[in-house]
Amino acid sequence: MTSTLLTGIGELVTCDPEAGDGSPLGILREAVLVIENGRVAWAGAAATAPAADDRVDVAGRAVLPGFVDSHTHLVFAGDRAAEFAARMAGERYTGGGIATTVAATRAASDEELRRIAGSRAGEMRSWGTTTFEAKSGYGLSAVDEARILRISREFTDETTFLGAHAVPSEFAGDRAGYLDLVRGAMLDACAPLAKWVDVFCDEGAFDAEEARAVLRAGMGAGLVPRLHGNQLGFGPGAQLAVELDAASVDHCTYLTDTDVAALAGSDTVATLLPGADFGTRSPYPDARRLLDAGVTVALATDCNPGTSFVTSMPLMIALAVREMHMTPAEALHAATVGGAAALRRTDIGRLSRGMRADFVVLEAPSHVHLGYRPGARLIHEVWKGGARG
Amino acid sequence: MTSTLLTGIGELVTCDPEAGDGSPLGILREAVLVIENGRVAWAGAAATAPAADDRVDVAGRAVLPGFVDSHTHLVFAGDRAAEFAARMAGERYTGGGIATTVAATRAASDEELRRIAGSRAGEMRSWGTTTFEAKSGYGLSAVDEARILRISREFTDETTFLGAHAVPSEFAGDRAGYLDLVRGAMLDACAPLAKWVDVFCDEGAFDAEEARAVLRAGMGAGLVPRLHGNQLGFGPGAQLAVELDAASVDHCTYLTDTDVAALAGSDTVATLLPGADFGTRSPYPDARRLLDAGVTVALATDCNPGTSFVTSMPLMIALAVREMHMTPAEALHAATVGGAAALRRTDIGRLSRGMRADFVVLEAPSHVHLGYRPGARLIHEVWKGGARG
Repeated sequence: MTSTLLTGIGELVTCDPEAGDGSPLGILREAVLVIENGRVAWAGAAATAPAADDRVDVAGRAVLPGFVDSHTHLVFAGDRAAEFAARMAGERYTGGGIATTVAATRAASDEELRRIAGSRAGEMRSWGTTTFEAKSGYGLSAVDEARILRISREFTDETTFLGAHAVPSEFAGDRAGYLDLVRGAMLDACAPLAKWVDVFCDEGAFDAEEARAVLRAGMGAGLVPRLHGNQLGFGPGAQLAVELDAASVDHCTYLTDTDVAALAGSDTVATLLPGADFGTRSPYPDARRLLDAGVTVALATDCNPGTSFVTSMPLMIALAVREMHMTPAEALHAATVGGAAALRRTDIGRLSRGMRADFVVLEAPSHVHLGYRPGARLIHEVWKGGARG
Repeated sequence: MTSTLLTGIGELVTCDPEAGDGSPLGILREAVLVIENGRVAWAGAAATAPAADDRVDVAGRAVLPGFVDSHTHLVFAGDRAAEFAARMAGERYTGGGIATTVAATRAASDEELRRIAGSRAGEMRSWGTTTFEAKSGYGLSAVDEARILRISREFTDETTFLGAHAVPSEFAGDRAGYLDLVRGAMLDACAPLAKWVDVFCDEGAFDAEEARAVLRAGMGAGLVPRLHGNQLGFGPGAQLAVELDAASVDHCTYLTDTDVAALAGSDTVATLLPGADFGTRSPYPDARRLLDAGVTVALATDCNPGTSFVTSMPLMIALAVREMHMTPAEALHAATVGGAAALRRTDIGRLSRGMRADFVVLEAPSHVHLGYRPGARLIHEVWKGGARG
């Protein structure tokens, strides 16, 4: 494999706090990047850079780690545009529409789901995402959950078993029976296809006891826990996540001081999903409070048909800046390092020696443009594993 | 010139209230569109459609009028990302940064400005905009204002003379002198290159008397008035616009009941610019109040480097739905019919017989997706004057 030298970098965002300007973004100027065997071989001064076979001049553009989108529902069929319109006209989001997507997804062929997922994954990539997580949760039967995970794995290694997304209509009178299925045959079918186990622990969804049982069962099958929590109201999600050393608790709109303190004293990431707050006209989480308490914050799209039909991490960054008062630097950090932490990955999210060469060449001289130009086509090129395209 | 028949239209949004479902969007189903000589020759049932040479099947996609972006500052050089970051960290927008862009724009060559404007116009088109207005206002000398308008006219017929955007630094001690220039030699140089005259009438910008004098002078030179008003506080903008029968008053964040009543009783459009409210973390205008009062509302991007560096009308629609409580239908209407009214154009903004064949084929079955999927790449194709591309 050949090595490549990137020159003409206007701003090299390493996200390595020991590099560059000493800030969390570790910004280097007049620096070069050398890529070898799909990894970063050098990020620093040109004078001391190793030799490389090829040379690419990025003409003053900023170079940043590829975005890590740690929360997506990649595989689903159909849409819920009508539900969206009704909600915008005043109806409240309760999660009840999940059944609509379950029906559409079950009815879709493997081919159709593969086509949809591929198109969606391509959209994510075009917005600069180089790693994303993908959840099941629109199958809600052993066969359909496993099918979703199998198709998801064609696009990402970061797959999550979310059988406990909702109780499907055929179990409407037998909640306990459904939870037995989730922890039993469904988990057996899904555990070999997943890395993570997730549960929707919130008002109207699963309570602490149910969520704990599902996550424990998943952990027993070798999966690592993460969870949806504190989206619709105050609740047990955040503390349960800490209790189980979950990688992340996602949403975090309604947090008590005790929740925040628990997160700050843990390795659990608070993943904020501003697309869902946008799409449900809900309050945004208090990112400043989390950051000030020392909690690791991630940003993700929550790409799903009910609340956040978005694939763009740059738009999440712009919303985080506008609505959650994160600085552009904090938002970018959350979209890279934060996402990597939420996936417990140490090989992505930064551009320092030895890290995977997953990065974005921005159509702008600075990462600040990600907040400054909402919705703009700012992705000049995406490189993954050292390869362009 | 050949004629074309569009079939397989999932939802044909004509914006002709006499067509289709009787709503303002005039939605037709199972309808076809016939294009001839760059115009709509037929929008209705397939059975009674005239014959056409070509046939294009859009496979269930929605077809809508192209967006009309009635407020852009197309031609400017440089960026103000640092000012944006400072504002997000707490500084208030006062319009003071305009000088930064004036300096960068004056320093840029014609070639450079042409390249920038072309790239920006291409971005607008890629988001489905088929007609846009372009203002001067970053030259602020007779030569530079005329230069900006000359370059703007390479991209659009809807050009606006905005010499009264700010007082340039060389006139810092001589405000009256600058206004004499705007109404004198600058207007003489610019009037032949423009259709519209505009002024920034707001707190810290120009007052009612100054604005009236500039607009009257422009009108005397054959230009039609429009103005920036009521963005930074309550003020005379809206009523001055009505007094002069301006085509539009743009921003409209701070309106009294008297302002709203005046607009409702006039032919002046209220153009809302949610990108600027997003980019300055300002309150959004009360669109519902305007719509309920019967005011014609337009949506536009306000594309400019200080407050709203955006080119996407779909994003403006999504913001209008989320933040201004417009329905997706109202937002789309404002982005098409509303924009056309703000430019006093009767040949665009609708897809009925005789109108220009400017339209968008959406990568979705319904216009609702424009609100439902913020930031998504929903533009399958853009046709302008009956030609694809």
